[in-house]
Amino acid sequence: MKILAIESSAKAASAALCEDGNLISQYFQASGLTHSRTLLKMAEDLLKNLELTLSDVDAVAVARGPGSFTGLRIGVAAAKGLCWGADLPCIGVSTLEAMAWQGAGHADCVICPAMDARRGQIYNAKFRFDGETLRRLAEDRAISLDQLTGEAKKEEISYFFIGDGAKLCYNRFLAEGLPARLAPEPLLLQTAWGVAMAAKGKTPEPGCDLTPNYLRLSQAERERLGHP
Amino acid sequence: MKILAIESSAKAASAALCEDGNLISQYFQASGLTHSRTLLKMAEDLLKNLELTLSDVDAVAVARGPGSFTGLRIGVAAAKGLCWGADLPCIGVSTLEAMAWQGAGHADCVICPAMDARRGQIYNAKFRFDGETLRRLAEDRAISLDQLTGEAKKEEISYFFIGDGAKLCYNRFLAEGLPARLAPEPLLLQTAWGVAMAAKGKTPEPGCDLTPNYLRLSQAERERLGHP
Repeated sequence: MKILAIESSAKAASAALCEDGNLISQYFQASGLTHSRTLLKMAEDLLKNLELTLSDVDAVAVARGPGSFTGLRIGVAAAKGLCWGADLPCIGVSTLEAMAWQGAGHADCVICPAMDARRGQIYNAKFRFDGETLRRLAEDRAISLDQLTGEAKKEEISYFFIGDGAKLCYNRFLAEGLPARLAPEPLLLQTAWGVAMAAKGKTPEPGCDLTPNYLRLSQAERERLGHP
Repeated sequence: MKILAIESSAKAASAALCEDGNLISQYFQASGLTHSRTLLKMAEDLLKNLELTLSDVDAVAVARGPGSFTGLRIGVAAAKGLCWGADLPCIGVSTLEAMAWQGAGHADCVICPAMDARRGQIYNAKFRFDGETLRRLAEDRAISLDQLTGEAKKEEISYFFIGDGAKLCYNRFLAEGLPARLAPEPLLLQTAWGVAMAAKGKTPEPGCDLTPNYLRLSQAERERLGHP
């Protein structure tokens, strides 16, 4: 099964093609150019250079959140467009679960994807890798660093951090004497490969059913409701 | 300093742009299509999607071996052509040193890039990562698995394997009760990012001075000399 995966939840954007869990091609960019300019162009170039078209693909996978509100809208809209135009099913996956795949291979620690969610919080979840697949230990959530270190103090196991919030967590863990490891640079940021891995085995759905998962209210919604 | 890096030493091919050690974009393909078809197209697409041209690049870096004879010739010839055409200097790096960067972040083990060199041998080298840079422990070489396990038995430290020979080494180490770890899939194969990292800080040279480093004689040369 060929999955075309796209990722645009944060600073980087990427497109990848995986077949039965094997990475065939990936195109990654963290240039600061807007994802609405680069994402679909990467997907298009990638298929062309593989001598494939959308009709050779079995499903489109996308990171549906949490993440940047604008980034998620670009990714989800692009996935919906590709699915509608080429009559393909879609697989929306958790951004954090996709990131956690980049920690696969680290069997002896808690894999903790972490995105800087501002306002003193990180979007994060927790996983263990059993040698073949990821086991989820905590749901996707927005919590404070205090809450995360509070949990880690009870666990006596090293945390492996991935994501744009990874350094923040890593430095805080070291400052509190908690065992922690930081992903090397090519594994630090989100990738479409992770999205394809998280999509593997999940049932594709019609693109029209795909919605972003912002996890928190947007700033405009918070202000309208009078929340801080 | 912007480095355009290309890699085609083995099954995968890739192009990357790094600026002062930061990955700006990478385009990777392990599709089975020949590198002579895909490599320059990836480099071209990558620059175009970054809104850059070769005149924005400060140097071209390339993995000059060891590796597949055909793959190395394609990569080295492409680098020479880019440098000649755009009047750029070139940095040729060891394929194995470039691969070792994919193990950076693993400070507590010997980082051992390993390529299947057939005829019972692996191309390999050994490095340690000190938190910032790689320290070389063994030169690039073609040795047998017996020799490698022989060394490891004296060292009492875990090996971290990268490359198309990684699984071969990993399984052999496990069978002999030696501590070993295997790079996760996105770090397993050569990448142009690693080439750019290995090139960082090295002095660029004229492209005309660049030569591949095959490490062993080609099959045709061996047969002419009557070697097995």
